[in-house]
Amino acid sequence: MRHPTRAGVRDAAAKIADILPPTPIYVSEINDVAIAFKAECLQPVGAFKVRGAWHRLTALSDEARARGVVAFSSGNHAQGIAWAAKRLGMSATVVMPSDAPAAKRDSTLALGAEVVTYDRATEAREVIAGRLAEARGATLVPSFDDPWVIEGQGSAGIESAAQMAAAGLGTPRHVVVPCGGGGLAAGIALALPEARVTVVEPEGWDDMRRSLEASWIEPVGANPPPTACDALQTTLVSPLTFDVLSRRDATGVAVSEAEIRAAQRWAAVRLRLVVEPGGAVALAALLGGRVTVEPGMLVLLSGGNVDLAAYGRVLAEAVA
Amino acid sequence: MRHPTRAGVRDAAAKIADILPPTPIYVSEINDVAIAFKAECLQPVGAFKVRGAWHRLTALSDEARARGVVAFSSGNHAQGIAWAAKRLGMSATVVMPSDAPAAKRDSTLALGAEVVTYDRATEAREVIAGRLAEARGATLVPSFDDPWVIEGQGSAGIESAAQMAAAGLGTPRHVVVPCGGGGLAAGIALALPEARVTVVEPEGWDDMRRSLEASWIEPVGANPPPTACDALQTTLVSPLTFDVLSRRDATGVAVSEAEIRAAQRWAAVRLRLVVEPGGAVALAALLGGRVTVEPGMLVLLSGGNVDLAAYGRVLAEAVA
Repeated sequence: MRHPTRAGVRDAAAKIADILPPTPIYVSEINDVAIAFKAECLQPVGAFKVRGAWHRLTALSDEARARGVVAFSSGNHAQGIAWAAKRLGMSATVVMPSDAPAAKRDSTLALGAEVVTYDRATEAREVIAGRLAEARGATLVPSFDDPWVIEGQGSAGIESAAQMAAAGLGTPRHVVVPCGGGGLAAGIALALPEARVTVVEPEGWDDMRRSLEASWIEPVGANPPPTACDALQTTLVSPLTFDVLSRRDATGVAVSEAEIRAAQRWAAVRLRLVVEPGGAVALAALLGGRVTVEPGMLVLLSGGNVDLAAYGRVLAEAVA
Repeated sequence: MRHPTRAGVRDAAAKIADILPPTPIYVSEINDVAIAFKAECLQPVGAFKVRGAWHRLTALSDEARARGVVAFSSGNHAQGIAWAAKRLGMSATVVMPSDAPAAKRDSTLALGAEVVTYDRATEAREVIAGRLAEARGATLVPSFDDPWVIEGQGSAGIESAAQMAAAGLGTPRHVVVPCGGGGLAAGIALALPEARVTVVEPEGWDDMRRSLEASWIEPVGANPPPTACDALQTTLVSPLTFDVLSRRDATGVAVSEAEIRAAQRWAAVRLRLVVEPGGAVALAALLGGRVTVEPGMLVLLSGGNVDLAAYGRVLAEAVA
């Protein structure tokens, strides 16, 4: 398998600039320091995933496109793939856990994809998706373990740097990124070679943090705690994403569920943005003091596809 | 008092383009028709009010600027004035009702303004503000009964038309606008002389609708029902706003509180935007079937400054 490259990220950024307007950058202060927030929750599918999906599917031959695409995802990658496939006239099948947020499943269906559900506790989605792809001759597009997908996600970094420069905010010096499998973080690390990179995961799901510290890949432990971050429940990172982040000396931090909820509330009040739990972890790291706030920070708000009832309860919760 | 003009709106748009990036336009379908939404909730102060405030305060002489500004507002105009005054190095005093959302009061204070509170039931804010302005020699800036303020708000229409054209969405043919005192609606009516204009108010507070129907100004009736739309609780529209809208043959519709809540939920799920009750009424009119959805529609989402607990309860509410 080829490795993702900075040239590939630049190529992806150019392709994506042709079809999607840049998501806005908003500046707001934390501890009197102006922080740049990249609002990927404002993508048409509500998350950055459309970037990697577009870069991957547009790289397929006409013949491969005609055979369609299969993906597995708890929701955001599903919508990214469905959106890109629809735009390219391709058929898309997505394998989703039966407990995925209804909003994510509905949106994927609304984008014309076929949805196949499985039981997160007893079945392996990789196996189901692989079997489907083989039966149909379709291309399997993993949500992060793929060089094109990583490069595509990295386009958010190219875009952010251009926007920060245009707004007089300088160069991103420290980028803080939500991390599930590490596709977005690795892509951005390639996009911004001068920036320090911090990846953020929910407590108990911080396998990338531990892997980077140990310098080899460590899986999530047995029986990880429940987390609201449905988008970040990956149990094993990819050698591709780990390798990129490790070479860049990226480090990781973990945030608590309470810190994530506080970050969701902050984003609603201060930025008027709906941010899902997994999309709010990087902000949570700043607000919770897990990373030191400093000038030149770029924080990714990676997704906004919430389960409305759960989100409403988080907002209504008394602030401690 | 001079009348607001289309030339004034264009002048305001040029001045505002120098200091604020355009708020995004998002396209989403209702009944399979693509509708353009202008996300004014993404302004730095969370509402369009910064437009009128900037146009008004920049029109003051240096001498007048030195004496400061006084405004009365339930929150959004307050923040707009505070933001503009801070940027111009002016002192700002805002008269707010004691029951204004805490978030709006806190944000106004954070922008450096002085806040004077009054009891909505027993005191007249116009009187208090007028007395303060007179004592200090400061300029009183009403929230809608002012030609500069109306022209400034209209810049949102100029901006929207340019963005819709650039995105290949054509010319706005029918604009649907939340209406309190009518400043935004009148400004946009001036900005878009070819578009049909529909103003939207909460049920029982639809004095602009009744005034336009009657062709003279009618106040809100005695004991209007409670509404979540703190930003739209004006009891009497202004001759300035009424006159502009009346000449443009604008019409009005009223929406129910349940329709407003449904619109807030729709905006959170479909657009990932936090929209306050008063900012969601135009969307509510489309979703509730109060106006017929048709191609070329432009819908203003005018503000996103919510009381978090109340907003959370709205989102968590079971959808009927």
